[in-house]
Amino acid sequence: MPTTVWLEVQSPSGPTNFLNGLKATDVTSLPKFVHINEEGPREGFQFEKGIIPTARKIELIDALSKTGLRHIQIVSFVNPKLVPGMADAEQVVEGITLQPGVAYAGLWLNDKGFERALATRRLHIRGSISLNASEKFLKLNQNRTPERQLAGQRAIAEMYRQKGIEIERGGIAAAFGCNFEGDVPVQRVLGLVQQLLDIAGEQGASLKRISLADTMAWATPLSIKRLVGAVQDRFAGHHLSLHLHDTRGMGLANAYAGLEMGVSYFDSSVAGLGGCPFAGHTGAAGNVCTEDLVFMCDEMGIETGVDLEALIACARLAEDVVGHPLPGSVMKGGSLRRLREKLAAVA
Amino acid sequence: MPTTVWLEVQSPSGPTNFLNGLKATDVTSLPKFVHINEEGPREGFQFEKGIIPTARKIELIDALSKTGLRHIQIVSFVNPKLVPGMADAEQVVEGITLQPGVAYAGLWLNDKGFERALATRRLHIRGSISLNASEKFLKLNQNRTPERQLAGQRAIAEMYRQKGIEIERGGIAAAFGCNFEGDVPVQRVLGLVQQLLDIAGEQGASLKRISLADTMAWATPLSIKRLVGAVQDRFAGHHLSLHLHDTRGMGLANAYAGLEMGVSYFDSSVAGLGGCPFAGHTGAAGNVCTEDLVFMCDEMGIETGVDLEALIACARLAEDVVGHPLPGSVMKGGSLRRLREKLAAVA
Repeated sequence: MPTTVWLEVQSPSGPTNFLNGLKATDVTSLPKFVHINEEGPREGFQFEKGIIPTARKIELIDALSKTGLRHIQIVSFVNPKLVPGMADAEQVVEGITLQPGVAYAGLWLNDKGFERALATRRLHIRGSISLNASEKFLKLNQNRTPERQLAGQRAIAEMYRQKGIEIERGGIAAAFGCNFEGDVPVQRVLGLVQQLLDIAGEQGASLKRISLADTMAWATPLSIKRLVGAVQDRFAGHHLSLHLHDTRGMGLANAYAGLEMGVSYFDSSVAGLGGCPFAGHTGAAGNVCTEDLVFMCDEMGIETGVDLEALIACARLAEDVVGHPLPGSVMKGGSLRRLREKLAAVA
Repeated sequence: MPTTVWLEVQSPSGPTNFLNGLKATDVTSLPKFVHINEEGPREGFQFEKGIIPTARKIELIDALSKTGLRHIQIVSFVNPKLVPGMADAEQVVEGITLQPGVAYAGLWLNDKGFERALATRRLHIRGSISLNASEKFLKLNQNRTPERQLAGQRAIAEMYRQKGIEIERGGIAAAFGCNFEGDVPVQRVLGLVQQLLDIAGEQGASLKRISLADTMAWATPLSIKRLVGAVQDRFAGHHLSLHLHDTRGMGLANAYAGLEMGVSYFDSSVAGLGGCPFAGHTGAAGNVCTEDLVFMCDEMGIETGVDLEALIACARLAEDVVGHPLPGSVMKGGSLRRLREKLAAVA
């Protein structure tokens, strides 16, 4: 049954009285600052077919760490037989020049990977637990039941507590749909988020962020709003983050929908590097592109702390490092700030 | 000074109570039906460097006309010396198989082009007048003043009346910004729309649609909402249409912002064909991609009347016709409907 809600909307002042009431809400609900978690190096290098020289990985990471990005996920500690592109994870971590104020992170899927990350002594180690919302994906790709998945994450949470590692983030993979299962119901995701909060709670932790991942690019702006709204309603007080893929071209539209819902944490990849090698796509595009996202934020008055021109240079470097074109748009079309500066210089 | 507005928001019923008030407005303001004006053949063939054989142009247009698209702009009648790719405009129009219910349109910029279009006797002839919002672009590219531009459009409107052609559409080019001038103020666009309405009015016509074109990809979702809202406020009763370019990756996010404002007319290009050859871009991406737009609408429950799978086949044909990859995403990532059907067949 529809319910009626009364809202007080502040119509922003401005040079034009452009708002017809309903739309004022969109404008005023945009966040003032967006936190970007750069995942290009990890997602990208893992996804590329050829082996990329360690020195070139380090070159890109070092360049990224000078753009103003504060969180960069640089490697994953996974089985080198399964993911040969990440066999040099330790060398990459060892080789980078640590930039003050930048948190360099790694990804691990089990205790062995976690121990490897810990042993580098150079990474920003925070606990993360996650559940995949697709039962078919669990079964077909990992031969696991939801119960076993849950037990596995419980064991990881227990491990974090024993090591004194803060459990910061809870993630739901395939939160919007899955190529092996189809649409994922909102109620299932809500149940899984509750399970993550329970697992963290059992270890005396409370999750700072809940991450919703559109792992296989099933989301649209409308389903972003639906799921984000549902999670915000039920789990108020937790920040949400979005992990978006651009496989069906919805990446930035979905990010915008998230911004309108007040989401202020996004994972993204410079130049649009990456893509899930296990998702069964023929034309898997990567994550939503960092510099395109930063451009959108910049132009809408949302701060990111990132220097767009420096990031565009990194995107071009990323293309050079992987040796083929990458999907990012702004690195090809150019920023508007740069154009405005040129026009001002001429005038 | 900010003003306070009280809104009554209907929270739609649904399987989940996902809405937290503010966001209900977004969902409920989406249009039920979106009218797509396919411009791929005209924008694309004009933009491509090599000459595309006439038969292949016809092949793509004939395929597009069987997808459910109701408006297809297929050629432009311009100076063949300046745009050699359109020298065969008459042959293309002559060669296509007219599909009932499909309006095939052409573009012209002056009376000579208009006479050529009329002479084909196969096109859907409607009058359109337009003004470019960038005074610098007018000066540098066309050596015209705003006054001369206005006089030119007035003459065209007069010509339409004399020929008994309905003036259906008024367009503003570079409505969001220009590479030669920078940002375009909302007030200037409002003034130009008024001029278009006046010109039409002088001929006893009233414009059915006002088209706002982001000719050089300066728009963001926020500026779309601002300008669309301003035009809606000042010129209620006229449908708006959006012509969007994807040069900086904002195409679909901008389309979504338009949808949220209730815009239900969009120009787009199959596979993302096209781009303005005079816009001074180094990496000019084309128009927003038709099948990606249709996918977004489909998945959000907005009807377009277009068969997405047939359109995806056209996008792949377009790549074959131009002989290189095109930017569309869904033709690579695949539709979700197709995936759902496969999953249902297995289950």
